[in-house]
This record gives sequence, C-alpha cells and structure tokens, in this order.
Amino acid sequence: MLDRSSSIKIPEPALRRLPWYLSYVKLLKSQGESIVSSTQIAKKIDVSASQIAKDLSYVDINGKTRVGYDVDELIQVLETFLGFTKSHKAVVFGVGSLGAALLSDSGLEQYGLKIIAGFDVKSSLVNKKIHHIPVFHSDEFVERNREMKAEIGVLTVPPGFAQEVSDYMIEGGIKGIWNFTPFRIRVPAGVVLQNTSLYAHLAVMFNRLNG
Amino acid sequence: MLDRSSSIKIPEPALRRLPWYLSYVKLLKSQGESIVSSTQIAKKIDVSASQIAKDLSYVDINGKTRVGYDVDELIQVLETFLGFTKSHKAVVFGVGSLGAALLSDSGLEQYGLKIIAGFDVKSSLVNKKIHHIPVFHSDEFVERNREMKAEIGVLTVPPGFAQEVSDYMIEGGIKGIWNFTPFRIRVPAGVVLQNTSLYAHLAVMFNRLNG
Repeated sequence: MLDRSSSIKIPEPALRRLPWYLSYVKLLKSQGESIVSSTQIAKKIDVSASQIAKDLSYVDINGKTRVGYDVDELIQVLETFLGFTKSHKAVVFGVGSLGAALLSDSGLEQYGLKIIAGFDVKSSLVNKKIHHIPVFHSDEFVERNREMKAEIGVLTVPPGFAQEVSDYMIEGGIKGIWNFTPFRIRVPAGVVLQNTSLYAHLAVMFNRLNG
Repeated sequence: MLDRSSSIKIPEPALRRLPWYLSYVKLLKSQGESIVSSTQIAKKIDVSASQIAKDLSYVDINGKTRVGYDVDELIQVLETFLGFTKSHKAVVFGVGSLGAALLSDSGLEQYGLKIIAGFDVKSSLVNKKIHHIPVFHSDEFVERNREMKAEIGVLTVPPGFAQEVSDYMIEGGIKGIWNFTPFRIRVPAGVVLQNTSLYAHLAVMFNRLNG
C-alpha cells in the first residue's frame, strides 16, 4: 500500500477542511449510514464535491465510483491521517486564565494532544496541579524536557513575553508551537507554528455585528 | 470627525491583522515608546509597511508623515475599533470540557466578551455555577434570553448537535455564533458566524511535525 501521506504534502487549506468531513461522516455513522459520497458531503458543507474528492485524494482511501466511501473506513483513515489517534506530548507555557482553561480541557486529548505539564513563573501556581496536570517553574523546562520529551508547546503567556518564551521552548526541544497570544512570533525554519487568535475572531465578530 | 468604521467595511483579512498591530504597539508602550511608524511595525510582524498603512487607513487615526503614529492614540483607537472596550453579552452552549474552560477564561472579558450564562442539558451541570457563571437547562434559553438579551452564542456542543443548537440559539435572539465545534454549521443571512476549529489547527500541527 502506497503511503501517500509521506510522499505528497497536502496543502494547508485542504488539511484544514478534512476535520469538517470527518465530523460530518461521524454524524452520518451515528445515524446508521454505512456509505457516503462526496456529493452527499458537499450538500451539507460549503465545499464542492470535486474539491472534496480532491482533498480526499491526499488521504489513503479509495471511493467506489458512483457509490462512495465506506463510512467506517473513511473515519478511521481520516482520524489516522489527521494524527488524532496518536498521542502527542505537549506542555503549556503560561498558566493564566486561558492556559489553565486548556489544561482543564480534556477534549484535546481525544484529538491527540496530551498536555503533560504546565509552566509558569508565578509562585502561587508553581508545584501545584491543575486538573491533575503538574505546573512547574518555567526555569525548569529545559532540564525537565530532557525526560518529558514534549514536542509541542502551547503558548498562552502575556503577549509581551511571547517571543522570548517561544525561543526558550525551542531551546528545550519544542518542535511545534501553538500560539494563542495575539503576538506574531517568529520561529526558525523547521519549527511548526500554528496561530489561534481568539481575539482576532472576536474582533471580526464584533465588527460584523455592528456593521 | 468622520466615522469611517460605519461607512467603509473593512475586509476580514485586514480586520484579522489589526490585533497583531495592537499587541505589538502595546508592547512598545510598555517599553516606553511614544511614537511608532508602520515601517517599525513591519519589521517585527510579517506584513509589509504599505499593507499596515492601508489596514490602518480603515481605522480613524492619522499618522504624521515621516514620523508615525502616536502610541497611546493608536492603542486607544484600535481597541475601540476592534470592539474590545465595549462589553458584548454572550452565552455558552455546551458546558463540557471546552465550554467549561471558556466559562473559566476571564481573559475573554478583557477583550469585550462577557459570558453571562452557560446552557446544557446535563442535570449534573444545570443550576450549578462555574467560575461564578450560572448554568441553566438549554430548554430555558429562549425564555431567559428575553431578559438577558445576549447577542453572541458560543457553540461548544458535541458536533452532532451543532446545527440544531445553532438554529435554536438564533431563535432565541442570538446574532453572532462563535463555533468551536469541527462541524460546518449554516446560519441565515444577517447572522455572523466565526469558526474557531482548534482541531483543524491541531491537525495541521501534527501533519507538519511528521512531514
């Protein structure tokens, strides 16, 4: 079986659409469906059937012409392709309001993100546990990560510290940074960066509501 | 003074960039700077100086040629334009792991989102409080929102219920939906929709880390 996932790099927009398909196909499964076509997915999601078929061509699944995809197989293949079935070790830097909230969100683990520790500089947080996850002093990260070997760092520090903490995480072995701060951090080549700016989404919402 | 915010509709990509500028300019202020140019912002953020100047032209601020923008004024004007200084009442539907985490994230209030209630169908959650915010039974929403008058609904229900709960929120007077589920919901014209798919961001991160 050809492992397309490693040979062809899927474009980011396609990759971002795959979780929509997964989510819809899971719904169909819960309704007892066993076969789904790209036309059927297209009807529910604002993406054309041909785009869906193209996006799914990056994933190792074969649809049957004029029939569609096997629902169980599609779910399994998508979850694997998206990395949701593997456990990826992560740490959270900045255990303030949002950081603590993410430590408490056990849902992330179902999607493959296993937060194993939080780091902060506040003495009221250090050496405490939040939702059974230990919080350590940030200064201990490089040392501790030799053992923990987390590859993903979730960045929820105040924006003024975002760049410096990002550099420090990378020094300690972090290969991917999930930036929740509104600050545009820079990372060296080879480090993966994903920005989730809740505040930018809020800004768009507020502006459009008033428009 | 011309109120440009209501006369010209700022494009969404520009709107999404404004919080980056705000965040950087706040950092400059904390470092004692009083004037900032678009060239200076461009150096720190991966956006060209001309794009920054263009983006800022939608906001009611005047830079001085060859000098730049007044830092205090730029912060104040951006925060107002982005809606962060006003309080927007919101409810959270689905007080599971992520929903409860958002109820606990007091940081959102600093950016203008005031979560006043949670709604869920689970009896173990209903009529409890999370982080001082009351949780009510979902069935009570339409009735309760006549008094509460929340305009924003945060959607954190299981994906299979996303569409139906979204329709129900709109029936109760919600004008803007912040969708955290991986489900592609549809909303009628006039209702604002913002999707924040944490799982899509995770998928991109995992895929790129393995590539």
